[in-house]
Amino acid sequence: MPRAPASDATLRERALRVVPGGMWGHLHAQRLPQGYPQFFARAEAGHIWDADGREYVDLMCSWGPIVLGHHDPVVDAAAARQAALGDCLNGPAPVMVELAERLVDRIPHADWAMFQKNGTDATTACVTIARAATGRRVILVAQGSYHGAAPWCTPVPAGTTDTDRAHQLRFRYNDVASLEAAADAAGDDLAAVIVTAFRHDNVVDQEMPTPEFALAMRRLCDRRGAALILDDVRAGFRLHRGGSWEGLGVRPDLSAWSKAIANGHALAAVTGSDALREAASRVFVTGSFWCAAVPMAAALATLQRLDELDAVAHMERLGRRLREGLAALAAQHRVGLRQSGPVQMPLFLFDGDAEFRQGSAFCRAALEAGAYLHPRHNMFLCAAHTDSDMDRVLDAADAGFRAVRRLAA
Amino acid sequence: MPRAPASDATLRERALRVVPGGMWGHLHAQRLPQGYPQFFARAEAGHIWDADGREYVDLMCSWGPIVLGHHDPVVDAAAARQAALGDCLNGPAPVMVELAERLVDRIPHADWAMFQKNGTDATTACVTIARAATGRRVILVAQGSYHGAAPWCTPVPAGTTDTDRAHQLRFRYNDVASLEAAADAAGDDLAAVIVTAFRHDNVVDQEMPTPEFALAMRRLCDRRGAALILDDVRAGFRLHRGGSWEGLGVRPDLSAWSKAIANGHALAAVTGSDALREAASRVFVTGSFWCAAVPMAAALATLQRLDELDAVAHMERLGRRLREGLAALAAQHRVGLRQSGPVQMPLFLFDGDAEFRQGSAFCRAALEAGAYLHPRHNMFLCAAHTDSDMDRVLDAADAGFRAVRRLAA
Repeated sequence: MPRAPASDATLRERALRVVPGGMWGHLHAQRLPQGYPQFFARAEAGHIWDADGREYVDLMCSWGPIVLGHHDPVVDAAAARQAALGDCLNGPAPVMVELAERLVDRIPHADWAMFQKNGTDATTACVTIARAATGRRVILVAQGSYHGAAPWCTPVPAGTTDTDRAHQLRFRYNDVASLEAAADAAGDDLAAVIVTAFRHDNVVDQEMPTPEFALAMRRLCDRRGAALILDDVRAGFRLHRGGSWEGLGVRPDLSAWSKAIANGHALAAVTGSDALREAASRVFVTGSFWCAAVPMAAALATLQRLDELDAVAHMERLGRRLREGLAALAAQHRVGLRQSGPVQMPLFLFDGDAEFRQGSAFCRAALEAGAYLHPRHNMFLCAAHTDSDMDRVLDAADAGFRAVRRLAA
Repeated sequence: MPRAPASDATLRERALRVVPGGMWGHLHAQRLPQGYPQFFARAEAGHIWDADGREYVDLMCSWGPIVLGHHDPVVDAAAARQAALGDCLNGPAPVMVELAERLVDRIPHADWAMFQKNGTDATTACVTIARAATGRRVILVAQGSYHGAAPWCTPVPAGTTDTDRAHQLRFRYNDVASLEAAADAAGDDLAAVIVTAFRHDNVVDQEMPTPEFALAMRRLCDRRGAALILDDVRAGFRLHRGGSWEGLGVRPDLSAWSKAIANGHALAAVTGSDALREAASRVFVTGSFWCAAVPMAAALATLQRLDELDAVAHMERLGRRLREGLAALAAQHRVGLRQSGPVQMPLFLFDGDAEFRQGSAFCRAALEAGAYLHPRHNMFLCAAHTDSDMDRVLDAADAGFRAVRRLAA
């Protein structure tokens, strides 16, 4: 029998007994200001409802996966059609071939695709394929970049060992000299460089890659016979219909995808160029649910809908409106607000707010006013967001700025 | 527009262009005798249909996840109810707490639970938690045991490095002396021992753990302050309603679960005892889809259905019938057949068949006759299998034995 609806507070108490710390990972509400809900009851389009029934315009979009909005009718119908046939089978369904073909058509660097469940599965497979292809070991990784939560990349060292990050060297994002120095240190053992689509490290201003940095990366990999891995897990399909570096004219050898690929269904993908194909066929990467057909049917429908709705342009237009509106409000309230990154994946940080007192006060007040924002992590727009959603977020932000003013008073 | 149905042969040709090697991992049909399909069109209860419309009684059950049968009406209804509310949200849905409570109620060693997507996520999290709890590094792993496909455990070395298996020492399954020797070699750096529920290594006869081995493992971990990790990913919920070692009276500190937990929905879990709770709250393991609510609703319904249907007993009864029937047929055809492992997860290997000529001929003929078997890997029964399904498998096996006899002729 279903239980009666439980409050967020009751659920937290119960969770504390049967889940370590009551929750874990990036969805832990203790990472958010007080007052944020931990549990969610339902969602629709660009809106969510917490366990207490409070509704919010949602600017986290489940931390990225929701790119069309919850319950997109075309995606839901495609998923239901495939589910009626079968999902997890003894091998892939025909839809896997269609999806691989669609990705190869859509993503200019891609000659092939493979599928997984987690973004971490995809980044890990990229590194493994690059090492198999080159017979070398060293991977260059930008300081502070997030590539997943496996021992080789998790940002928290608890439970990892001194060797989990062996054969990794660091460079600074957008710093060509540091990249070249790291490559020199790798010598003839350089297998790959892995880089996020833009600099979206936690808690610092976001940075778009400079064209010279992206080009230097491509040239370095070509010169040294190393693979350029684009980690497009977080940004993929929100910035461009193909790869996020298409606008820069720089194409990777391998890309990792996940989050937005199937509008919330669990799926990840690696795409690669022909030079990496043979190595990709030699590594052993797999999982019980990697070929499940329902998320693949959802992905096909998601990609189709992104095009039909001109979703990237829509998210850009609303994101620009939000950015300009927030800038105007910040000026009006005389609060120093820094906005960074692509407008459809906005981050804002307050000047002189190392302890996030301003950011927390702002977000708490905005939450009360019906907008679910994040004080430290980039947010995500989706295609179901509307102008009136942005109006509501700006109204909530006005309450947020007033809360920040009260802190200073 | 959906394409017209494509044949398995056409799909393979298309896949060869857009997927490395045309397929990858454990679902690659090249691991099976010729004639096996690569692509599947649909499934129902204990039956599957390939892309060419051929129907089979399915003894692989999607390599384990399908434990109730495809399209169990109660699981499907629970999943649909949760999907109508929301799946991938900004945090977990209330169903996560219910599922953690249910696992803690059901699994005697479990004081808490955490959720993931892949079995590999769960085994990796167990190792990470054990290392965090003990502040030590070495993990004892049985030779030949499969714990997943990440670089630390994948059975194929391509793309892995010399350090991916640092801090691992090997022992032999069911060999107490080798276990003690490995622990001695680890000295005071022993973090954990990881062990599969029974010995289900690829291509060799399966072995149940001896009570003395299980008990020695428990005592060794207690004596040395190391964690005993039971990898119940493959066997979990098919052998026992709680943990697979309950019958032995030996309880692990951490268990990894996946496969059958949600009847085909993508979900994995770690359960642990209170001694590991604090460490589990300190490690950073997470993924975009780990808290998706639909697979959790499916898991709750799956566990309920397993009990209602007395599924373990049903699978045991049919498995015993199948084992006895195969033994009788083998004797009748004077073919040396070794059957091993729990009857609901059967493996058969032919005597003197190092190159799998007999196994392949047998399975190919059985496939023709409508039974999908595996010549080298353990198989899986499910609660939807019927006596008449077993009759059909035995009829197909009769054709298989005749094919084996023809080889000898």
